Amino acid sequence: RKRLDQQFDFIKEIDKEKFIQRQTRLSDNVRRENDAEHAWHMAIMTVLLSEYANEKIDVLRTVTMLLIHDIVEIDAGDTYAYDEEGLKTQRERECQAADRIYALLPEDQQSKLRDIWEEFEAGETPEAKFAHTMDNIQPTMLNDASKGKAWATRGVHLSQILGRNKNTAKGSETLWNYSYENFITPSLREGKIKNDTLPEE
Amino acid sequence: RKRLDQQFDFIKEIDKEKFIQRQTRLSDNVRRENDAEHAWHMAIMTVLLSEYANEKIDVLRTVTMLLIHDIVEIDAGDTYAYDEEGLKTQRERECQAADRIYALLPEDQQSKLRDIWEEFEAGETPEAKFAHTMDNIQPTMLNDASKGKAWATRGVHLSQILGRNKNTAKGSETLWNYSYENFITPSLREGKIKNDTLPEE
Repeated sequence: RKRLDQQFDFIKEIDKEKFIQRQTRLSDNVRRENDAEHAWHMAIMTVLLSEYANEKIDVLRTVTMLLIHDIVEIDAGDTYAYDEEGLKTQRERECQAADRIYALLPEDQQSKLRDIWEEFEAGETPEAKFAHTMDNIQPTMLNDASKGKAWATRGVHLSQILGRNKNTAKGSETLWNYSYENFITPSLREGKIKNDTLPEE
Repeated sequence: RKRLDQQFDFIKEIDKEKFIQRQTRLSDNVRRENDAEHAWHMAIMTVLLSEYANEKIDVLRTVTMLLIHDIVEIDAGDTYAYDEEGLKTQRERECQAADRIYALLPEDQQSKLRDIWEEFEAGETPEAKFAHTMDNIQPTMLNDASKGKAWATRGVHLSQILGRNKNTAKGSETLWNYSYENFITPSLREGKIKNDTLPEE
Protein backbone atom coordinates (compact mmCIF):
# COMPACT_ATOMS: atom_id res chain seq x y z
CA ARG A 1 0.00 0.00 0.00
CA LYS A 2 1.15 3.51 -0.63
CA ARG A 3 2.22 5.85 2.13
CA LEU A 4 -1.00 7.84 2.33
CA ASP A 5 -3.11 4.67 2.35
CA GLN A 6 -1.05 3.36 5.27
CA GLN A 7 -1.40 6.64 7.14
CA PHE A 8 -5.18 6.68 6.68
CA ASP A 9 -5.41 2.98 7.64
CA PHE A 10 -3.97 4.00 11.00
CA ILE A 11 -6.02 7.20 11.26
CA LYS A 12 -9.24 5.26 10.64
CA GLU A 13 -8.25 2.46 13.02
CA ILE A 14 -7.72 4.84 15.95
CA ASP A 15 -11.31 6.06 15.62
CA LYS A 16 -11.98 3.02 17.86
CA GLU A 17 -10.27 4.75 20.76
CA LYS A 18 -13.49 6.77 21.10
CA PHE A 19 -15.26 3.57 22.20
CA ILE A 20 -12.88 2.75 25.06
CA GLN A 21 -14.55 3.74 28.31
CA ARG A 22 -12.55 4.80 31.33
CA GLN A 23 -13.63 4.61 34.98
CA THR A 24 -13.62 8.39 35.32
CA ARG A 25 -16.95 10.19 35.14
CA LEU A 26 -17.28 13.48 33.27
CA SER A 27 -17.94 16.64 35.26
CA ASP A 28 -21.72 16.41 34.62
CA ASN A 29 -21.65 13.05 36.41
CA VAL A 30 -23.89 11.54 33.71
CA ARG A 31 -21.56 9.30 31.80
CA ARG A 32 -18.02 7.97 31.83
CA GLU A 33 -15.16 9.45 29.86
CA ASN A 34 -13.58 7.72 26.88
CA ASP A 35 -9.90 7.54 26.00
CA ALA A 36 -10.05 10.06 23.16
CA GLU A 37 -11.73 12.70 25.34
CA HIS A 38 -9.20 12.04 28.09
CA ALA A 39 -6.27 12.49 25.70
CA TRP A 40 -7.72 15.68 24.21
CA HIS A 41 -8.18 17.19 27.65
CA MET A 42 -4.62 16.41 28.73
CA ALA A 43 -3.13 17.75 25.51
CA ILE A 44 -4.68 21.17 26.20
CA MET A 45 -3.65 20.93 29.86
CA THR A 46 -0.06 20.38 28.72
CA VAL A 47 -0.13 23.48 26.51
CA LEU A 48 -1.41 25.54 29.48
CA LEU A 49 0.53 23.97 32.36
CA SER A 50 3.98 23.16 30.93
CA GLU A 51 5.37 26.16 32.83
CA TYR A 52 5.07 24.08 36.03
CA ALA A 53 7.17 21.15 34.83
CA ASN A 54 10.09 20.38 37.18
CA GLU A 55 12.38 20.20 34.15
CA LYS A 56 11.92 22.03 30.85
CA ILE A 57 9.83 19.94 28.45
CA ASP A 58 9.37 19.75 24.68
CA VAL A 59 5.67 20.61 24.55
CA LEU A 60 4.96 19.08 21.11
CA ARG A 61 6.57 15.78 22.09
CA THR A 62 4.63 15.69 25.36
CA VAL A 63 1.35 16.55 23.64
CA THR A 64 1.97 13.87 21.00
CA MET A 65 2.76 11.37 23.75
CA LEU A 66 -0.52 12.10 25.51
CA LEU A 67 -2.53 12.06 22.28
CA ILE A 68 -1.32 8.53 21.44
CA HIS A 69 -0.58 6.95 24.83
CA ASP A 70 -3.88 5.04 25.09
CA ILE A 71 -4.11 3.80 21.50
CA VAL A 72 -3.02 0.35 22.71
CA GLU A 73 -6.25 0.17 24.70
CA ILE A 74 -8.16 -0.33 21.43
CA ASP A 75 -7.05 -3.96 21.73
CA ALA A 76 -5.98 -4.20 25.36
CA GLY A 77 -8.90 -2.32 26.95
CA ASP A 78 -8.71 0.15 29.81
CA THR A 79 -7.04 -1.32 32.87
CA TYR A 80 -8.43 0.36 35.99
CA ALA A 81 -5.73 1.79 38.22
CA TYR A 82 -6.84 -0.40 41.15
CA ASP A 83 -7.51 -3.64 39.22
CA GLU A 84 -4.69 -5.83 40.55
CA GLU A 85 -5.37 -8.86 38.34
CA GLY A 86 -5.62 -6.74 35.20
CA LEU A 87 -2.43 -4.91 36.04
CA LYS A 88 -0.44 -8.18 35.98
CA THR A 89 -1.10 -8.78 32.27
CA GLN A 90 -1.39 -5.13 31.20
CA ARG A 91 2.11 -4.72 29.77
CA GLU A 92 1.90 -7.88 27.65
CA ARG A 93 -1.56 -7.07 26.32
CA GLU A 94 -0.53 -3.54 25.48
CA CYS A 95 2.68 -4.57 23.69
CA GLN A 96 0.72 -6.94 21.45
CA ALA A 97 -1.69 -4.11 20.69
CA ALA A 98 1.17 -1.74 19.86
CA ASP A 99 2.67 -4.37 17.54
CA ARG A 100 -0.56 -4.62 15.58
CA ILE A 101 -1.78 -1.02 15.52
CA TYR A 102 1.46 0.90 14.91
CA ALA A 103 2.32 -1.60 12.14
CA LEU A 104 -0.43 0.01 10.06
CA LEU A 105 1.78 3.11 9.63
CA PRO A 106 4.69 3.61 7.23
CA GLU A 107 7.89 2.37 8.88
CA ASP A 108 9.36 5.77 9.83
CA GLN A 109 6.16 6.87 11.59
CA GLN A 110 5.67 3.43 13.07
CA SER A 111 8.98 3.63 14.89
CA LYS A 112 8.54 7.30 15.78
CA LEU A 113 5.19 6.72 17.51
CA ARG A 114 6.25 3.43 19.05
CA ASP A 115 9.32 5.13 20.51
CA ILE A 116 7.21 7.91 21.98
CA TRP A 117 4.84 5.36 23.51
CA GLU A 118 7.72 3.33 24.98
CA GLU A 119 9.19 6.57 26.34
CA PHE A 120 5.87 7.22 28.08
CA GLU A 121 5.82 3.70 29.48
CA ALA A 122 9.38 3.98 30.82
CA GLY A 123 8.55 7.31 32.46
CA GLU A 124 12.12 8.53 32.65
CA THR A 125 12.41 11.61 30.43
CA PRO A 126 11.10 15.02 31.52
CA GLU A 127 8.38 14.71 28.86
CA ALA A 128 7.28 11.26 30.04
CA LYS A 129 7.30 12.33 33.68
CA PHE A 130 5.15 15.34 32.88
CA ALA A 131 2.81 13.22 30.76
CA HIS A 132 2.27 10.91 33.74
CA THR A 133 1.60 13.93 35.93
CA MET A 134 -1.16 14.94 33.50
CA ASP A 135 -2.45 11.35 33.29
CA ASN A 136 -2.86 11.26 37.06
CA ILE A 137 -4.13 14.78 37.68
CA GLN A 138 -6.77 14.93 34.95
CA PRO A 139 -8.95 12.10 36.34
CA THR A 140 -8.37 13.34 39.90
CA MET A 141 -9.70 16.74 38.83
CA LEU A 142 -12.78 15.11 37.25
CA ASN A 143 -13.37 12.90 40.28
CA ASP A 144 -13.39 16.04 42.40
CA ALA A 145 -15.68 17.84 39.91
CA SER A 146 -18.18 14.97 40.20
CA LYS A 147 -18.01 15.17 44.02
CA GLY A 148 -15.88 12.08 44.53
CA LYS A 149 -18.57 9.71 43.27
CA ALA A 150 -16.12 7.42 41.43
CA TRP A 151 -13.99 7.08 44.56
CA ALA A 152 -16.97 6.47 46.85
CA THR A 153 -18.55 3.88 44.50
CA ARG A 154 -15.33 1.90 44.32
CA GLY A 155 -14.52 2.30 48.03
CA VAL A 156 -11.11 3.74 47.26
CA HIS A 157 -8.67 4.32 50.12
CA LEU A 158 -6.25 7.22 50.40
CA SER A 159 -3.29 4.80 50.44
CA GLN A 160 -4.37 3.57 46.97
CA ILE A 161 -4.53 7.12 45.64
CA LEU A 162 -1.13 7.95 47.10
CA GLY A 163 0.30 4.74 45.60
CA ARG A 164 -1.19 5.53 42.21
CA ASN A 165 0.29 9.04 42.47
CA LYS A 166 3.72 8.05 43.69
CA ASN A 167 5.31 9.50 40.54
CA THR A 168 3.00 12.47 40.00
CA ALA A 169 5.35 14.94 41.68
CA LYS A 170 8.24 13.77 39.47
CA GLY A 171 6.76 15.68 36.54
CA SER A 172 5.65 18.69 38.56
CA GLU A 173 5.82 19.21 42.32
CA THR A 174 3.64 22.30 41.98
CA LEU A 175 0.86 20.46 40.17
CA TRP A 176 0.93 17.47 42.51
CA ASN A 177 0.65 19.76 45.53
CA TYR A 178 -2.19 21.66 43.86
CA SER A 179 -3.98 18.42 43.01
CA TYR A 180 -3.63 17.01 46.51
CA GLU A 181 -4.87 20.18 48.15
CA ASN A 182 -7.70 21.02 45.72
CA PHE A 183 -8.90 17.72 44.26
CA ILE A 184 -8.12 15.04 46.86
CA THR A 185 -8.49 16.80 50.21
CA PRO A 186 -12.17 17.79 49.74
CA SER A 187 -13.28 14.17 49.12
CA LEU A 188 -11.12 12.96 51.97
CA ARG A 189 -12.73 15.46 54.30
CA GLU A 190 -16.19 14.33 53.22
CA GLY A 191 -15.38 10.62 53.60
CA LYS A 192 -15.72 9.88 49.85
CA ILE A 193 -12.13 8.67 50.03
CA LYS A 194 -11.47 6.32 52.95
CA ASN A 195 -8.66 7.64 55.09
CA ASP A 196 -6.55 4.61 55.96
CA THR A 197 -3.35 6.51 56.62
CA LEU A 198 -4.27 7.86 60.06
CA PRO A 199 -2.25 6.42 62.91
CA GLU A 200 -4.30 3.88 64.95
CA GLU A 201 -5.37 5.22 68.31
CA ARG B 1 -7.88 34.23 41.91
CA LYS B 2 -4.36 32.97 41.59
CA ARG B 3 -2.86 31.85 38.31
CA LEU B 4 -3.28 28.12 38.82
CA ASP B 5 -6.89 28.55 39.98
CA GLN B 6 -7.63 30.49 36.80
CA GLN B 7 -5.96 27.85 34.66
CA PHE B 8 -7.95 25.05 36.28
CA ASP B 9 -11.19 27.08 36.04
CA PHE B 10 -10.66 27.00 32.27
CA ILE B 11 -9.52 23.36 32.19
CA LYS B 12 -12.62 22.28 34.10
CA GLU B 13 -14.93 24.45 31.98
CA ILE B 14 -13.77 22.89 28.73
CA ASP B 15 -14.80 19.44 29.99
CA LYS B 16 -18.20 20.53 28.58
CA GLU B 17 -16.85 20.26 25.04
CA LYS B 18 -17.27 16.49 25.44
CA PHE B 19 -21.05 17.04 25.48
CA ILE B 20 -21.21 18.92 22.17
CA GLN B 21 -22.48 16.52 19.51
CA ARG B 22 -21.51 16.90 15.88
CA GLN B 23 -23.42 15.64 12.85
CA THR B 24 -20.68 13.18 11.97
CA ARG B 25 -21.18 9.55 12.93
CA LEU B 26 -18.29 7.49 14.28
CA SER B 27 -16.91 4.68 12.13
CA ASP B 28 -19.05 2.06 13.97
CA ASN B 29 -22.12 3.99 12.79
CA VAL B 30 -23.69 3.68 16.25
CA ARG B 31 -23.42 7.16 17.65
CA ARG B 32 -22.39 10.67 16.68
CA GLU B 33 -19.01 12.19 17.39
CA ASN B 34 -18.45 14.94 19.93
CA ASP B 35 -16.20 17.97 19.61
CA ALA B 36 -13.46 16.68 21.93
CA GLU B 37 -13.15 13.40 20.02
CA HIS B 38 -13.07 15.30 16.73
CA ALA B 39 -10.29 17.59 17.97
CA TRP B 40 -8.23 14.68 19.33
CA HIS B 41 -8.47 12.84 16.03
CA MET B 42 -7.35 15.87 14.00
CA ALA B 43 -4.46 16.61 16.34
CA ILE B 44 -2.99 13.17 15.67
CA MET B 45 -3.74 13.54 11.96
CA THR B 46 -1.73 16.77 11.95
CA VAL B 47 1.26 15.06 13.56
CA LEU B 48 1.12 12.34 10.89
CA LEU B 49 0.13 14.36 7.81
CA SER B 50 1.96 17.69 8.17
CA GLU B 51 4.41 16.53 5.48
CA TYR B 52 1.64 17.14 2.90
CA ALA B 53 1.04 20.79 3.82
CA ASN B 54 1.37 23.12 0.81
CA GLU B 55 3.54 25.42 2.94
CA LYS B 56 5.70 24.41 5.89
CA ILE B 57 3.69 24.55 9.13
CA ASP B 58 4.49 24.90 12.81
CA VAL B 59 3.05 21.58 13.99
CA LEU B 60 2.60 22.54 17.66
CA ARG B 61 0.73 25.72 16.73
CA THR B 62 -1.51 23.81 14.31
CA VAL B 63 -2.19 21.05 16.84
CA THR B 64 -3.01 23.64 19.52
CA MET B 65 -5.32 25.42 17.07
CA LEU B 66 -7.21 22.21 16.37
CA LEU B 67 -7.37 21.22 20.02
CA ILE B 68 -9.07 24.50 20.98
CA HIS B 69 -10.92 25.56 17.83
CA ASP B 70 -14.33 24.24 18.92
CA ILE B 71 -14.25 25.42 22.53
CA VAL B 72 -16.62 28.26 21.58
CA GLU B 73 -19.24 25.63 20.78
CA ILE B 74 -19.67 25.00 24.52
CA ASP B 75 -21.87 28.11 24.45
CA ALA B 76 -22.59 28.50 20.73
CA GLY B 77 -23.38 24.86 19.89
CA ASP B 78 -22.30 22.99 16.80
CA THR B 79 -23.44 24.70 13.61
CA TYR B 80 -23.95 22.10 10.91
CA ALA B 81 -22.05 22.87 7.72
CA TYR B 82 -25.26 22.99 5.67
CA ASP B 83 -27.48 24.84 8.20
CA GLU B 84 -27.92 28.16 6.38
CA GLU B 85 -29.90 29.92 9.12
CA GLY B 86 -27.45 28.87 11.82
CA LEU B 87 -24.49 29.98 9.74
CA LYS B 88 -25.81 33.58 9.65
CA THR B 89 -25.45 34.05 13.42
CA GLN B 90 -22.52 31.67 13.96
CA ARG B 91 -19.75 34.26 14.11
CA GLU B 92 -21.58 36.46 16.64
CA ARG B 93 -22.53 33.53 18.87
CA GLU B 94 -19.00 32.19 18.80
CA CYS B 95 -17.36 35.54 19.60
CA GLN B 96 -19.56 35.92 22.67
CA ALA B 97 -18.57 32.42 23.72
CA ALA B 98 -14.87 33.18 23.23
CA ASP B 99 -15.25 36.35 25.31
CA ARG B 100 -16.66 34.38 28.23
CA ILE B 101 -14.63 31.18 28.12
CA TYR B 102 -11.13 32.47 27.35
CA ALA B 103 -11.62 35.15 30.05
CA LEU B 104 -11.33 32.38 32.63
CA LEU B 105 -7.59 32.12 31.85
CA PRO B 106 -4.76 34.37 33.10
CA GLU B 107 -4.38 37.31 30.71
CA ASP B 108 -1.30 36.11 28.85
CA GLN B 109 -2.85 32.72 28.05
CA GLN B 110 -6.21 34.33 27.34
CA SER B 111 -4.74 36.41 24.56
CA LYS B 112 -2.51 33.59 23.30
CA LEU B 113 -5.42 31.18 22.85
CA ARG B 114 -7.80 33.83 21.58
CA ASP B 115 -5.22 34.84 18.97
CA ILE B 116 -4.81 31.24 17.85
CA TRP B 117 -8.59 30.86 17.55
CA GLU B 118 -8.92 34.11 15.58
CA GLU B 119 -6.08 32.92 13.33
CA PHE B 120 -8.05 29.74 12.67
CA GLU B 121 -11.18 31.74 11.93
CA ALA B 122 -9.35 34.03 9.49
CA GLY B 123 -7.84 31.03 7.71
CA GLU B 124 -4.92 32.91 6.21
CA THR B 125 -1.73 31.51 7.73
CA PRO B 126 -0.26 28.18 6.59
CA GLU B 127 -1.22 26.72 10.00
CA ALA B 128 -4.82 27.92 9.77
CA LYS B 129 -5.16 26.70 6.20
CA PHE B 130 -3.88 23.27 7.17
CA ALA B 131 -6.15 23.18 10.22
CA HIS B 132 -9.15 23.82 7.95
CA THR B 133 -7.96 21.03 5.67
CA MET B 134 -8.00 18.68 8.67
CA ASP B 135 -11.37 20.03 9.83
CA ASN B 136 -12.88 19.20 6.45
CA ILE B 137 -11.17 15.90 5.73
CA GLN B 138 -11.70 14.23 9.11
CA PRO B 139 -15.53 14.18 8.93
CA THR B 140 -15.39 13.28 5.23
CA MET B 141 -13.26 10.26 6.13
CA LEU B 142 -15.74 9.23 8.84
CA ASN B 143 -18.72 9.74 6.53
CA ASP B 144 -17.05 7.38 4.09
CA ALA B 145 -16.21 4.89 6.86
CA SER B 146 -19.88 4.79 7.84
CA LYS B 147 -20.87 4.22 4.18
CA GLY B 148 -22.14 7.72 3.48
CA LYS B 149 -25.06 7.39 5.91
CA ALA B 150 -24.79 10.98 7.20
CA TRP B 151 -24.84 12.32 3.62
CA ALA B 152 -27.73 10.11 2.54
CA THR B 153 -29.85 10.94 5.63
CA ARG B 154 -29.43 14.66 5.08
CA GLY B 155 -29.85 14.44 1.30
CA VAL B 156 -26.55 16.21 0.71
CA HIS B 157 -25.64 17.24 -2.85
CA LEU B 158 -22.16 17.18 -4.34
CA SER B 159 -22.28 20.94 -4.93
CA GLN B 160 -22.72 21.45 -1.17
CA ILE B 161 -19.73 19.25 -0.41
CA LEU B 162 -17.62 21.07 -2.97
CA GLY B 163 -18.73 24.42 -1.53
CA ARG B 164 -17.90 23.32 1.98
CA ASN B 165 -14.49 22.15 0.73
CA LYS B 166 -13.65 25.19 -1.36
CA ASN B 167 -10.64 25.95 0.86
CA THR B 168 -9.56 22.39 1.65
CA ALA B 169 -6.86 22.34 -1.06
CA LYS B 170 -5.39 25.60 0.28
CA GLY B 171 -3.86 23.70 3.19
CA SER B 172 -2.88 20.64 1.18
CA GLU B 173 -3.58 19.87 -2.46
CA THR B 174 -2.41 16.30 -1.92
CA LEU B 175 -4.82 15.65 0.93
CA TRP B 176 -7.78 17.26 -0.82
CA ASN B 177 -7.18 15.11 -3.89
CA TYR B 178 -6.85 12.02 -1.73
CA SER B 179 -10.04 12.85 0.14
CA TYR B 180 -12.02 13.49 -3.04
CA GLU B 181 -10.87 10.27 -4.64
CA ASN B 182 -11.09 7.98 -1.61
CA PHE B 183 -13.79 9.42 0.65
CA ILE B 184 -16.21 11.31 -1.61
CA THR B 185 -16.15 9.39 -4.91
CA PRO B 186 -17.37 6.04 -3.43
CA SER B 187 -20.53 7.61 -1.94
CA LEU B 188 -21.11 9.59 -5.11
CA ARG B 189 -20.91 6.43 -7.17
CA GLU B 190 -23.41 4.71 -4.86
CA GLY B 191 -25.84 7.63 -4.90
CA LYS B 192 -25.42 8.42 -1.19
CA ILE B 193 -24.32 11.86 -2.32
CA LYS B 194 -26.65 13.42 -4.90
CA ASN B 195 -24.73 14.37 -7.98
CA ASP B 196 -26.09 17.76 -9.03
CA THR B 197 -23.02 18.84 -10.97
CA LEU B 198 -23.67 16.76 -14.10
CA PRO B 199 -24.58 18.75 -17.19
CA GLU B 200 -28.29 18.43 -18.02
CA GLU B 201 -28.93 16.14 -20.98
